[in-house]
Amino acid sequence: MGNDTGNRRRRIVIIGSGFGGLFAARKLKKADADITIINRTTHHLFQPLLYQVATGIISEGEIAPPTRLILRKYRNTTTLLGDVTDIDMTARTVTSEAMGMTTVTPYDSLIVAAGAGQSYFGNDHFAEYAPGMKTIDDALELRGRILGAFEQAEISTDAHARERLMTFVVVGAGPTGVELVGQIAELAHHTLRGSFRNIDPSDARIVLLDGADDVLPVYGGKLSANARKKLEKLGVEIQLQAMVTDVNRDGLTIKRKDGTETLIRSQCKVWSAGVQASPLGKMIADQSDTTVDRAGRVRVQPDLSVAGHPEVFVIGDMMALDDLPGLAQVAMQGGEYVAKQLIAEIKGKQTEYQRPDFRYWDKGSMATISRFSAVAKVGRIELTGFIAWLIWLVIHLMYLVGYRSRAMTLFAWTMTFFGRGRAQMTITEQQVIARTALKEQHRPAPPAPAPAAERDAG
Amino acid sequence: MGNDTGNRRRRIVIIGSGFGGLFAARKLKKADADITIINRTTHHLFQPLLYQVATGIISEGEIAPPTRLILRKYRNTTTLLGDVTDIDMTARTVTSEAMGMTTVTPYDSLIVAAGAGQSYFGNDHFAEYAPGMKTIDDALELRGRILGAFEQAEISTDAHARERLMTFVVVGAGPTGVELVGQIAELAHHTLRGSFRNIDPSDARIVLLDGADDVLPVYGGKLSANARKKLEKLGVEIQLQAMVTDVNRDGLTIKRKDGTETLIRSQCKVWSAGVQASPLGKMIADQSDTTVDRAGRVRVQPDLSVAGHPEVFVIGDMMALDDLPGLAQVAMQGGEYVAKQLIAEIKGKQTEYQRPDFRYWDKGSMATISRFSAVAKVGRIELTGFIAWLIWLVIHLMYLVGYRSRAMTLFAWTMTFFGRGRAQMTITEQQVIARTALKEQHRPAPPAPAPAAERDAG
Repeated sequence: MGNDTGNRRRRIVIIGSGFGGLFAARKLKKADADITIINRTTHHLFQPLLYQVATGIISEGEIAPPTRLILRKYRNTTTLLGDVTDIDMTARTVTSEAMGMTTVTPYDSLIVAAGAGQSYFGNDHFAEYAPGMKTIDDALELRGRILGAFEQAEISTDAHARERLMTFVVVGAGPTGVELVGQIAELAHHTLRGSFRNIDPSDARIVLLDGADDVLPVYGGKLSANARKKLEKLGVEIQLQAMVTDVNRDGLTIKRKDGTETLIRSQCKVWSAGVQASPLGKMIADQSDTTVDRAGRVRVQPDLSVAGHPEVFVIGDMMALDDLPGLAQVAMQGGEYVAKQLIAEIKGKQTEYQRPDFRYWDKGSMATISRFSAVAKVGRIELTGFIAWLIWLVIHLMYLVGYRSRAMTLFAWTMTFFGRGRAQMTITEQQVIARTALKEQHRPAPPAPAPAAERDAG
Repeated sequence: MGNDTGNRRRRIVIIGSGFGGLFAARKLKKADADITIINRTTHHLFQPLLYQVATGIISEGEIAPPTRLILRKYRNTTTLLGDVTDIDMTARTVTSEAMGMTTVTPYDSLIVAAGAGQSYFGNDHFAEYAPGMKTIDDALELRGRILGAFEQAEISTDAHARERLMTFVVVGAGPTGVELVGQIAELAHHTLRGSFRNIDPSDARIVLLDGADDVLPVYGGKLSANARKKLEKLGVEIQLQAMVTDVNRDGLTIKRKDGTETLIRSQCKVWSAGVQASPLGKMIADQSDTTVDRAGRVRVQPDLSVAGHPEVFVIGDMMALDDLPGLAQVAMQGGEYVAKQLIAEIKGKQTEYQRPDFRYWDKGSMATISRFSAVAKVGRIELTGFIAWLIWLVIHLMYLVGYRSRAMTLFAWTMTFFGRGRAQMTITEQQVIARTALKEQHRPAPPAPAPAAERDAG
């Protein structure tokens, strides 16, 4: 039997401290096992609020508390900083690296919850010009790019350049794209109002692009229409059925269904159009009898384990099962489900062949559009406007880790939503320098010719 | 007459948005003049609390609000992002650069308040291994280095390396050094307690070094003795009369008065031992009849102007006058004094030859040692302990810019001082990567860092 550890305490390794990994660790807090949670950053990240860090509402500390402080009191749990470079499913070890040091951690049970990154659908060179928003670094970089574009426009004396600097494009009209574009609009129209002398920030052109037929396509119907109307009222220009075919320093090229191509000149572009699961998914599939889907997600068994490896589970944004969406709730419930099975097995109440299937309980989903306005869907109930926004607020506060974060965030929200101030508008010099470097590096942009060997090949 | 602008509105340029520049701009808010404030960052920086950003108590947003938002309502004031590269005192222009764009701003009156950077007393190569704490970037970098050293120690399996990783050295026992070392001690003994499994953070060796005979040498006597006792109680090892002769990746070399040399092996070193005024000081001295002192500060006239140039003022950490110290109060009062003279001259109530001498009103000075403990000196009154700490708290809250920052900071302090939690412990990946790069790059290679004075310019 795969999980027989004799009299030794079972060693459970969790890769990833996002919603999936953290909820698994929490559920395992009293388990008679040695648990190690490995992550490449020192923090748990509350991703759904990253857009608020990017737009100056909250600080990174509020949504990214150190994992080891959250788990401090769980004496069976060790938090390990490390970027996982290898999973050996035969030797049952995980190899991770951090700051030049390599650690090999053996496991009896493995929970892989490494999440997903941005997908550029094969155009990875877009990333430099249109970064995604998946990490704290992304959010702070984006804050620097948004506020920096206004600063550059203020200094610029060239009307043509100014127009480009004051055009903001968000690619992808899912919840993240909608929330971000709404906040960029509020920044331009409210927060920054009256603080520049040569430009009027409310002249900014703010564009939301998607290849789909509507914003928030997962909702559709009344909710999508409501979101669209609200965004347009905020001054957001919505372009649908628009495929991005190129992104460079100057802007984006868009192809429409009728085949016409348009160029949007824009300095600050953001990509929130697709996700790609951690490459650890492929590594697992290569060592087992399963495969990954187009987004790199591992096709798992009904108990979230990998075919032929009942000791390895894949959860959250990395797993493909029953078309479940990449939502925090799916990851949380997956983490708790797996922990529950392991606890039952450790106690000898159940074997790995007796696990019930994982059942996802859809508690609904929602997206904010601007202050006082959101859309929410709970089962067949559809809500919009202020009531949806209030529900959004309460639920997001509830899931923030720790009383401190909740109280600080509530305070920051009160300031931003009822006043017009934002407390976290600081740009570091590192970011300014990074942007300058980007610019200088890519001004000459010599097109690299194909290597001679390649051209002459064959 | 130098300042005759005929019927044209006077153009006043302020370089720097620290205490000096910001207080000058605020005082000038109703002046019949066109004011431009130029700074290389987008924010005003409340430097005295940088150590709290470095040690995870408060967020960067609380002490670094955007200058243009602070000055938004002053319709006569323009905020310009730019690194000043030239001052032409004949043509009366200031040249600044930002993100690849150059701006030339003409002036009738110039207030230079570009502050000071860290000084390594001619050993600028120390900077890479023992960064100073003068900017938001410095503080965030330091946060990454402090928390990162504990993370590395947790992973390391080499006892010798662990000892080096868990030794923290602060060079310079002035207020900044004392405040920082006190907070590192509280981090190790309280905040991080119980969150590691392979190390005990309270085993950390925390060293405060100074060449002087006592900590807080500007106070001396009872206050220095009190601070010293309190720090030792916190577990800080104090080494006085110790000159640093070398700093490298592995640690520092110290030379004592008796000529003996000791090596302290330490990964995380911080430099707060001296300051060097912005190189703009030298630029001004070279174009006028004055000189700079050893710290690069401009020797100014009793009206804070430059000899032969009554239209150019130098204030704050950049000015040398009557041995005034580099304190926020000196900069604030200097900024307000200069603004007052200019207002009187614009109104025709006074000429530049009738200015009264600048008089510094010493409101006292203070330093915190840890929670509930500070030392303060107001005239001949010396205070220690809780009462000094309360005064410190109220005064620092008072001078924070904006109600929002004050309320958030008060909340963060309540959490940290009365609980043991810290809300801002996030390290970005950029910082982790920077540290790794530093390590890998400099194991074999000789250092070639930019001179400290250059990094901290303008």
